[in-house]
Amino acid sequence: MSQPDPATAGPADDAYAEGVVDLLAALAYGELSAFDRLAEDARTAPTLSGRAALASMAAAEIGHYRRLDEALAGRGVAVDEVMAPFAAPFDAFNASTAPHSWLESLVKAYVGDGLAADFYREVAEWLDDSTKALVLDVLADTGHSAFAEREVLAACADDRSLRDKLTLWGRRLLGEAVTQAQRVVAERDALAELIIRGSGDLTGIVALFRRLQNNHTKRMARLGLG
Amino acid sequence: MSQPDPATAGPADDAYAEGVVDLLAALAYGELSAFDRLAEDARTAPTLSGRAALASMAAAEIGHYRRLDEALAGRGVAVDEVMAPFAAPFDAFNASTAPHSWLESLVKAYVGDGLAADFYREVAEWLDDSTKALVLDVLADTGHSAFAEREVLAACADDRSLRDKLTLWGRRLLGEAVTQAQRVVAERDALAELIIRGSGDLTGIVALFRRLQNNHTKRMARLGLG
Repeated sequence: MSQPDPATAGPADDAYAEGVVDLLAALAYGELSAFDRLAEDARTAPTLSGRAALASMAAAEIGHYRRLDEALAGRGVAVDEVMAPFAAPFDAFNASTAPHSWLESLVKAYVGDGLAADFYREVAEWLDDSTKALVLDVLADTGHSAFAEREVLAACADDRSLRDKLTLWGRRLLGEAVTQAQRVVAERDALAELIIRGSGDLTGIVALFRRLQNNHTKRMARLGLG
Repeated sequence: MSQPDPATAGPADDAYAEGVVDLLAALAYGELSAFDRLAEDARTAPTLSGRAALASMAAAEIGHYRRLDEALAGRGVAVDEVMAPFAAPFDAFNASTAPHSWLESLVKAYVGDGLAADFYREVAEWLDDSTKALVLDVLADTGHSAFAEREVLAACADDRSLRDKLTLWGRRLLGEAVTQAQRVVAERDALAELIIRGSGDLTGIVALFRRLQNNHTKRMARLGLG
């Protein structure tokens, strides 16, 4: 789908605008939620520099949140209100995937952010130019993934059983993310419409899901897992 | 004390350099610690915008932490190592002043940041220009105090007993801060030396303490407390 043509503006574009608000609101709550998770996990860091690294990732999420807040305000909607419907699925994802160790935290931060970024990056392609630019901008890697790769690779180097455990952890994260994403799409008509129109048809959605899964596998491999 | 004169460089300036490292390290751990506290308190916010406001304050602390980290690295010291001695007093302060409500969190963030900023701003006056600029820069108000003032004033407007409770809370914060600051100064010779030389003598230290206390009282008044 390309940018709506003003000459044919009508109900379809209202639906588009509503879908975009849903998308930005989901992104915004996702940032707040990621902030919480990273800030909490930072406390379990074995070193002060690890703690600072996770705290910095958390701070970057808030920078992104601020940009989304402004963009939503610019569309005349209150970020609090439009985010509210997304709180339950994101919170459920976090509650069902509470890390039990520093390494599980790192894998979750790395894999979770990666999955979300892949999804939003695909959706961004169907958006008007300015919304697309905003979405891509708030997804920019904050330069901390190298830290997670280094830590996880080092910890697993000589520990086959840890590697197996973290591999299962990665699979579980993917499964839970898919479950909650389906829940969001089932509840948010305008967002579902945006995704269906964007991907073309059911085949398009299946292909999108497969790409997300493939990228997840590659990401796990970069951590030395899977 | 003005900037050390290179012509008279010697042991005194080694002590000065050591004192400055201590000061920056204390500031850095203070930022990390404030990040933790604010991030944790953000979760108790009654609204999503309150949660975002506290999360933003937390993120700003990490921005400051990064600058201090760079400055310490530039002095050839590892931030992890030099921060370590300050972990216990800051953690003790936070453990002894864990907020029991959203309003206690806000008062603590406001009063704690204010006290710390006043103290470092006084010390900054005794430093060489570039260190002074760095310290003043990381103390810049991140624009969130207005939020705390608004929330606390509104909550206390018609609630005398809440006002009394938060007034006592503010006094307790000051007492605990002084206790831990004394502990730091007793343990860190170079930092103590910096403060003693800067303030001139015991009378100077007493005057400094009185100014901190006066500012604290004014700050409480801006929250409608005291």
